[in-house]
Amino acid sequence: MSALSEIPREDFAFYINHLRALSVDCVQAANSGHPGMPLGMAPCAYMLFAHTLKFDASSPDWFDRDRFVLSNGHGCTLLYSLLHMCGFDQLSLSQLSKFRKLGSCTPGHPERGVTAGVEVTTGPLGQGLANAVGMAIAETHLASRLNIKGEDELIDHHTFVFCGDGCLMEGIGQEALSLAGHLGLDKLVVIYDDNQISIDGSTSLSFTEDSQSKYASMGFDVYAIENGDSDYSKIQEVLLRAKHARNKRPKFIALRTTIGFGSEVAGSAKVHGAPLGPEGVRLLKKNLNIKEEYLDKPFSVPQEAYAPYHLAAMKGKAENARWQEVLERYKTLYRNSQCHERKLFEYVFMNANTMSFIDAIDSSILPKEPIASRKASEIVLGKLIEMSPFLIGGSADLSGSNLTIVGEMKKCSFQKDSPQGRYIHYGVREHAMAGIANGIVAHGGLIPYCGTFLNFIGYCLGAVRLSALSHLGVVYVATHDSIGLGEDGPTHQPTEISAVLRAMPNLLLLRPADSRETLECWKIALQERSTPSVLCLSRHALPSLPSCIEDRVIIEGVSKGGYTLCTKGKLSMKPSIVLLSTGSEVHLCLQAADELIRNNYLESLSVVSMPCLEKFRLQSSDYQITVLPDGIPVLAVEAWTSQCWAEFAHAVIGIDKFGCSAPQTDCYKLFGVTVDNIVKKSVELLKKFQYERAPSKKLL
Amino acid sequence: MSALSEIPREDFAFYINHLRALSVDCVQAANSGHPGMPLGMAPCAYMLFAHTLKFDASSPDWFDRDRFVLSNGHGCTLLYSLLHMCGFDQLSLSQLSKFRKLGSCTPGHPERGVTAGVEVTTGPLGQGLANAVGMAIAETHLASRLNIKGEDELIDHHTFVFCGDGCLMEGIGQEALSLAGHLGLDKLVVIYDDNQISIDGSTSLSFTEDSQSKYASMGFDVYAIENGDSDYSKIQEVLLRAKHARNKRPKFIALRTTIGFGSEVAGSAKVHGAPLGPEGVRLLKKNLNIKEEYLDKPFSVPQEAYAPYHLAAMKGKAENARWQEVLERYKTLYRNSQCHERKLFEYVFMNANTMSFIDAIDSSILPKEPIASRKASEIVLGKLIEMSPFLIGGSADLSGSNLTIVGEMKKCSFQKDSPQGRYIHYGVREHAMAGIANGIVAHGGLIPYCGTFLNFIGYCLGAVRLSALSHLGVVYVATHDSIGLGEDGPTHQPTEISAVLRAMPNLLLLRPADSRETLECWKIALQERSTPSVLCLSRHALPSLPSCIEDRVIIEGVSKGGYTLCTKGKLSMKPSIVLLSTGSEVHLCLQAADELIRNNYLESLSVVSMPCLEKFRLQSSDYQITVLPDGIPVLAVEAWTSQCWAEFAHAVIGIDKFGCSAPQTDCYKLFGVTVDNIVKKSVELLKKFQYERAPSKKLL
Repeated sequence: MSALSEIPREDFAFYINHLRALSVDCVQAANSGHPGMPLGMAPCAYMLFAHTLKFDASSPDWFDRDRFVLSNGHGCTLLYSLLHMCGFDQLSLSQLSKFRKLGSCTPGHPERGVTAGVEVTTGPLGQGLANAVGMAIAETHLASRLNIKGEDELIDHHTFVFCGDGCLMEGIGQEALSLAGHLGLDKLVVIYDDNQISIDGSTSLSFTEDSQSKYASMGFDVYAIENGDSDYSKIQEVLLRAKHARNKRPKFIALRTTIGFGSEVAGSAKVHGAPLGPEGVRLLKKNLNIKEEYLDKPFSVPQEAYAPYHLAAMKGKAENARWQEVLERYKTLYRNSQCHERKLFEYVFMNANTMSFIDAIDSSILPKEPIASRKASEIVLGKLIEMSPFLIGGSADLSGSNLTIVGEMKKCSFQKDSPQGRYIHYGVREHAMAGIANGIVAHGGLIPYCGTFLNFIGYCLGAVRLSALSHLGVVYVATHDSIGLGEDGPTHQPTEISAVLRAMPNLLLLRPADSRETLECWKIALQERSTPSVLCLSRHALPSLPSCIEDRVIIEGVSKGGYTLCTKGKLSMKPSIVLLSTGSEVHLCLQAADELIRNNYLESLSVVSMPCLEKFRLQSSDYQITVLPDGIPVLAVEAWTSQCWAEFAHAVIGIDKFGCSAPQTDCYKLFGVTVDNIVKKSVELLKKFQYERAPSKKLL
Repeated sequence: MSALSEIPREDFAFYINHLRALSVDCVQAANSGHPGMPLGMAPCAYMLFAHTLKFDASSPDWFDRDRFVLSNGHGCTLLYSLLHMCGFDQLSLSQLSKFRKLGSCTPGHPERGVTAGVEVTTGPLGQGLANAVGMAIAETHLASRLNIKGEDELIDHHTFVFCGDGCLMEGIGQEALSLAGHLGLDKLVVIYDDNQISIDGSTSLSFTEDSQSKYASMGFDVYAIENGDSDYSKIQEVLLRAKHARNKRPKFIALRTTIGFGSEVAGSAKVHGAPLGPEGVRLLKKNLNIKEEYLDKPFSVPQEAYAPYHLAAMKGKAENARWQEVLERYKTLYRNSQCHERKLFEYVFMNANTMSFIDAIDSSILPKEPIASRKASEIVLGKLIEMSPFLIGGSADLSGSNLTIVGEMKKCSFQKDSPQGRYIHYGVREHAMAGIANGIVAHGGLIPYCGTFLNFIGYCLGAVRLSALSHLGVVYVATHDSIGLGEDGPTHQPTEISAVLRAMPNLLLLRPADSRETLECWKIALQERSTPSVLCLSRHALPSLPSCIEDRVIIEGVSKGGYTLCTKGKLSMKPSIVLLSTGSEVHLCLQAADELIRNNYLESLSVVSMPCLEKFRLQSSDYQITVLPDGIPVLAVEAWTSQCWAEFAHAVIGIDKFGCSAPQTDCYKLFGVTVDNIVKKSVELLKKFQYERAPSKKLL
């Protein structure tokens, strides 16, 4: 860093302008994309990557790298260009030229897992802010638990995030920053691209709050840079000050820039999201003093322009090498220690299969008497927390309702002065909670679970979608999972949210029917590290599944997503009907099955529990047919929308209305989710198919 | 108001404490609910209802009443008790005693439409803040357009909203208040119940921002009341000052209270959401100096306790009577005027069927060449805006993409200094936008439409659900409705959101296939005043449906939700297959149909367009069978999750994955949503059912 002051001003401009040119070439080649932000933010991006950020281009996943998040993800050509300039192998000029093309590693918005150096998937605004807060939480927490006093710090990195006015207008951004201020995450640096232009035009149309005093009131150190276009030394000074101030306050840098800097439409909304056109690009490059020989050659960069980026990359590589030595020292220290955190260290740094223990947790920890599945979850969690030091919990201010806070967590939560706490009081901030949990997984080293009522998954759907899209195995603990919550009424009773969770790719909705199923669902959620899970848990007590059902049946059955719980009546006969259900309604089906047999409505039937449709769909059709035999009518029973069951069932008892404020039993009766109605519907269904096979429901 | 200073202090306490006692009786009778907030907020509630708020209990819907919103809706027994004390007929003591019981008008959270005097459905936190902002917008806008200079003001009321820390932590609350500050809604008064307790415990666990300087930085006038428990005169003084300051700044009152005031668990999280128990109630009442004779009689109120509430009610009734005279005068003035706003006046105050004109809008306004359905929507809107003065538009900073800003709106939007503007620049605040639109409908007098990308309906699902639950006919304009948006990629391409929108009760998802269908969908959306609609519109150009299809077929067909667009091949024969589709994919089906006939794969088939499944489900089965004949295989084609089609189709071409960043045609090809694949799947389906009837898909 010492050589920085020696770089001549015009050289800064040279390095920055080639970054700009490259970003704009991408947009022009795709004839689609967002040139405005990269042109405005290039100076700060340069200062950050070339002179501030700790990274190793040859090892993009280096654990102690600084994290960089582009929350205003539409400006991704800036990031791709930076990664190219810094020498990230994957980002060749050829890949840059394939921006927004099928199969490239340069998609239209940054996608985690597609591009090395892209930490998180952004584009939906505000998400990146929450992700960055999650990363800063993870860093702070792991540092406090794993760094050893008197030794070099094993974990010591920063999280930088770029955002625009859009991210700051979004609720998720506000929730996340409010929590960041509360938690005093001083290694989080938020850089606000204050270009005073949003898509609709000037921000004076919709966004005129005094950001600087606002973020100060929220616990941030606030810095202002009046001229983000060319006051390079100020940018650098502020970045370094913000990075090094360890004062339990996160940093907010208001950086005044010109959107589309250097182009003919600079400073206007026109340059936000439309290519400049070939002539516009040429003019821009001229304005940026790009040499004549490069003017008409897109994706051409003079070798000299790489110099500071390569220098930064070399510096980072050396830092990583030094850090590897520190890591080796820690390995020795931890190997010879029996300290509590050894297991965490091994999980984070030694790829230890620390998850294997969960198979050993068995039903002996569970009571036999009826308990709510949220209560069963609490018991399971008590055990998990004890045995898995990488778990970090939380709830959006419903800890006592979600039953997500267990054991030692009750004594010490993650706070400014207790970063070692393993429980996050997210406050009533569901959307940020989910986005932060995404950031924690993306950071690495920890598995977050977080709680809210199932219906309020609707408040954080934007972030849940990104868990699924970016393969982040967040565990959502969603209690109060039906009208069974009773008196709180329709505003709190989920009926239709299951439809989108089940339709969402790469997400598991798990709805256990009793304690033993809850245990197995938790195991699945923890083992699926690239797929988020939503555990749907009852508020009210559920009986245990009959004790005659062996543990191994439940274990295998839940792992397959659905299984025959029991066959009633003449076991030798094919069932006349299948009652198919999930969660609390499974018990109604079991009772209805007894009624049907007792009243001689039929001679044999089976009851199927299907806690996870997504898993069941993955099974062989041989297995599926053993559960839902061809030609046998199926009645599905679930206190949610019937939409999800048309695929499997010939009739559904569901709820295609909003719920009702009333005691639980009144609610169930009102909507016909009762033993009597199951019996009645079963008889109707039997009658309908008495002379014919029930048709296959399978879609072609 | 003049007599206020003459009321002795102890009398205030008496009136307030009976309000408290009544609220707690409700919770105790239900053995469920939230006593903490009503006990803490009773003094302010009393001062507001008895001495500040303008209302007429005998005419709860009086247009010029002040609006009161309980954003912390869990404290609804306070509101029910107030409404009872003030003489709202529906709220008898008997109804109060049925709190949270089936069929009562006192559900567990306030529900619009269930209880007179309840303006909006609240409970999901933060929503009420957005609703209140919407109400204040509606008032400001209507006042600016309908009040006549030199006359008494016809529209001149305030919006008061109670909220807790939860509402202020929620993103939707932050978005809404940020916009309120920007818009300078000075007749909006936000009263923050600063009891420093959230469900998890002290707010010091998660919420420590400096609210007062925060809201000042967001453009609010901020008032602080240190002792909200007993500094009655200060409460009253601040309420009046806040009400009367007309300075283009909304008001934020930080009111320090004690949660559960008077109970043994006052000031702790324990009192938030659990009944006090019979002994706790008795102790509370003793602490509140409730007379011995009322101690053990729940729901008993001494007659004297009603006095100030009844006085306020009488005052309100008189004000309403005076206002009716003003209204009569305005009726004469407007009747004799040809001014532009006459039609608006008639819509708001004379129940004029101003909607009838929309039937007259016909396809002549639409071009024949291919255009995007968002573009068709823009053309339709241009006409609608001109003819329907009650429409108020907006977008979450995507005006130029949603094409929601038309005609005069481009010149003047709704702003601090132009309240007559009919377009709201919501900024990037989807959740608040939807909540505000709910508030605008709930206020009355205006129909709001608001735009975002379909995928970002996921950001505002919480509020969309409340549109549906509370019967508020908001029109959501959701463009960029599929992978057809191309390069922006999977973060922006909706695939699964349709599942929850179609599963949601009382909501219409409308996906038109061309301009003419778009026009009809808009008509439906406007006519459905108790049901919200989501118009799903394409970014890319769609051909017009064949001109041989007559307008009346489309008009009738769309109104029925689904219809046979055309039959191809031998018209005399029953179709061998039905291709069922919506929106942009209808055109692929039409092409595939031609291919199938041309290649002699079959002799006859029909193509069905089903822009609205919810409407189609409501048709007679006779009609349904004409569209989807019994025994004929159905192939559904839609670029979204297949989940919604299992109900109707034997095979589905859908997208059960996340999308992809690539040019549009590459995306369609990648996911097999192509003419070729439709032909292939059709042939497979024909083969499967060549010897048998296709089974009924209908659920029992």
